[in-house]
Amino acid sequence: MSDQPCKVAVAGLGTVGAETVRLIAANQDLLAARAGRKVVVTAVSARDRSRDRGIDLAGITWFDNAAEMATQADADIIVEVIGGEEGMARDVIDNAIAGGRSVVTANKALLAHHGMEIAAAAEAAKCSLAYEAAVAGGIPIIKALREGLAANRHSRVTGILNGTCNYILTEMRETGALFDDVLADAQAKGYAELDPTFDIDGIDAAHKLALLASLAFGVRLNFDAVYTDGIRHVSPTDIAFAEELGYRIKLLGTAKLTEAGLEQRVHPCMVPKEAPIAHVEDVFNAVVVEGDFVGQTLYEGRGAGGGPTASAIVADIVDIAAGRTTPAFGVPVASLRDIQPAAMDEHICSYYIRLSVVDKAGVVAEVAAILRDMEVSISNLMQRARDPGEPVPLVLTTHETREGAMVEAMRRISALDVCVEEPRMIRIETL
Amino acid sequence: MSDQPCKVAVAGLGTVGAETVRLIAANQDLLAARAGRKVVVTAVSARDRSRDRGIDLAGITWFDNAAEMATQADADIIVEVIGGEEGMARDVIDNAIAGGRSVVTANKALLAHHGMEIAAAAEAAKCSLAYEAAVAGGIPIIKALREGLAANRHSRVTGILNGTCNYILTEMRETGALFDDVLADAQAKGYAELDPTFDIDGIDAAHKLALLASLAFGVRLNFDAVYTDGIRHVSPTDIAFAEELGYRIKLLGTAKLTEAGLEQRVHPCMVPKEAPIAHVEDVFNAVVVEGDFVGQTLYEGRGAGGGPTASAIVADIVDIAAGRTTPAFGVPVASLRDIQPAAMDEHICSYYIRLSVVDKAGVVAEVAAILRDMEVSISNLMQRARDPGEPVPLVLTTHETREGAMVEAMRRISALDVCVEEPRMIRIETL
Repeated sequence: MSDQPCKVAVAGLGTVGAETVRLIAANQDLLAARAGRKVVVTAVSARDRSRDRGIDLAGITWFDNAAEMATQADADIIVEVIGGEEGMARDVIDNAIAGGRSVVTANKALLAHHGMEIAAAAEAAKCSLAYEAAVAGGIPIIKALREGLAANRHSRVTGILNGTCNYILTEMRETGALFDDVLADAQAKGYAELDPTFDIDGIDAAHKLALLASLAFGVRLNFDAVYTDGIRHVSPTDIAFAEELGYRIKLLGTAKLTEAGLEQRVHPCMVPKEAPIAHVEDVFNAVVVEGDFVGQTLYEGRGAGGGPTASAIVADIVDIAAGRTTPAFGVPVASLRDIQPAAMDEHICSYYIRLSVVDKAGVVAEVAAILRDMEVSISNLMQRARDPGEPVPLVLTTHETREGAMVEAMRRISALDVCVEEPRMIRIETL
Repeated sequence: MSDQPCKVAVAGLGTVGAETVRLIAANQDLLAARAGRKVVVTAVSARDRSRDRGIDLAGITWFDNAAEMATQADADIIVEVIGGEEGMARDVIDNAIAGGRSVVTANKALLAHHGMEIAAAAEAAKCSLAYEAAVAGGIPIIKALREGLAANRHSRVTGILNGTCNYILTEMRETGALFDDVLADAQAKGYAELDPTFDIDGIDAAHKLALLASLAFGVRLNFDAVYTDGIRHVSPTDIAFAEELGYRIKLLGTAKLTEAGLEQRVHPCMVPKEAPIAHVEDVFNAVVVEGDFVGQTLYEGRGAGGGPTASAIVADIVDIAAGRTTPAFGVPVASLRDIQPAAMDEHICSYYIRLSVVDKAGVVAEVAAILRDMEVSISNLMQRARDPGEPVPLVLTTHETREGAMVEAMRRISALDVCVEEPRMIRIETL
């Protein structure tokens, strides 16, 4: 046991920051045993000093300005839990590294955009940049990819990376309610932000996916290459058809190496009900990794919240305190490769399509002819009778086909007179 | 990148040893990038030099005697994949540590029995003892408990730790076949050993559980305290009733901290169908960990086989090559505690009981009276009519009760004249 405690300064005392301070106090005996030295919080910074956060800040130096704290605090590690892809969070991290202090952050947005620069700076300064808390909350998936699965050449990483979306999709399936109603309810319960764009449009998942892709494939971060589509258009009708076809709808973030290059995509997927990830419900996250020797492994847990996020932050702190270091993205920044992003048109999968058509003779023939012309092969077809005069749903699944062909087919189908609503397409992910 | 390669000697060239050599050759570029130095196999040892293992041993020194190799090889790390809780495997490990070489092993039996001594010797010699491959194959659960979840005070670790048993239980459920028939089939397919005792009687799972318990709770290994019961008595009837009651039967290894002390137990369990672990099928393993801040996390993957096991072994090698070290059981051996083992009689859970009774008036009353006397409260009761004269199954589930009371109730029930077969009891694990 070293006599030197590991000193930690926490920038940001929202839910996660406060819980981190609480955890370090509550489990100090364990942390000392596991890190080989005491872990102590020496400084904190937040906007409002007067707010009661239910934590004991006695003996901890308060800074009104987090960027100043990162420079001046008596600390080995600066924890950044302010959030935001620019501004104060960035200043805190830059100042910490400039002073040779290690950084532990939960900030996926900032890393997805600036992770390469920051990792390079940390390497040059010989300090650690750790971000277990940035992806999938308490699940140690960063460590699994960076160390636990280090022997493998990976072919795919895919996961449920946003708890809000998974909660909404689970609720929609269980209650049959509309997206807007479930979202409003989730906002009332505090599971969704008042401005839910980052979550429901897939941006938050895309940030996390970019980090996973870099780690899994040893490539430079390329957030701009992530194809991103959220869950706003998922309807109870599609959820019901998915169920009937043996699928569940999940928002997955997937990075996959194909002949066309590296796919990075976030979009709603149908996954087979037998797949373990289909049973990951509510606010839980899960990540599936495919390696050449290990095969598929799956990691599941709470993807957000104070406790799980603090667990991940403090695990990073223990690693650093114990002297265990790893390059932030698994290998030195200079060794990260660039892999050609695969164009989404080159993506190959099976598709679910739902059309809303006028119920008259020849409709199926028209649709089928378009698919034939685009060389899209039909796997399954369901048409449901309704009251006469009402549009009927026509649901298809396809065999594996190129996205480019599918998109063109959808364009042509939507131009048909008999098609009364925008057709819906959901990709089927094999798992 | 260091100029010094990390030199590895592999003791044992069965499936796992050969696959380890193959992996290190196949992924040498990746390993060098991730370890910061080349990883090379410099020596191997096995009984039969002439056997074709499909791997290139050119330039690798052959030793007929693995114990000599552990002393003499030009190697930083000795990989022990001979197996067995004594004998040559032990000599290899002892010799390696005596020479200041780090040890990577997949040998759960040896560690469960002698892990404390060996870990203490490794610490004294300042070398690593790593055993990711000993538990749950390719799933990095040792690293998760030792590092990724290090911030947490754990309350329970439970998992499907034996792929052979899970395969047999899955097959029994899917086909309705008898245990003996499925076992014979599994043996024919190579999924079960010719002497399957270690697997089906829960001993292998108990070895693994002891290691997980030590890591999770920071306690000295206590294999002798593991209550162990296998799957020989699980019948298609019980599997069918489980299904009807909303459960699946799994062989779980569970370590749990209770008021009575530390429970360590391996036995068939009914787990709720909604629990993710209920959907872990075939030869897959999964581990659920409960921590005070992170909550429940789950880890799933292939628990055996050359590829997954080699993945775990080489991950340990990369850690050691990169200079990342951790005490074998998370904290120094001297810091491991002893926690009083909880007597199995003190275990509290709900129980499933199946009786085979003569179908006549008063049977339920007799059984119910015994349960009332033992203060066991009935939650569910099902009696099925059969052809007159045949014994009928009487199935009960109970509310939570002490195992001691349940065992005594079972003893009294089995003594009833109307009870025509040994009653069956399966514990229900809440997840």
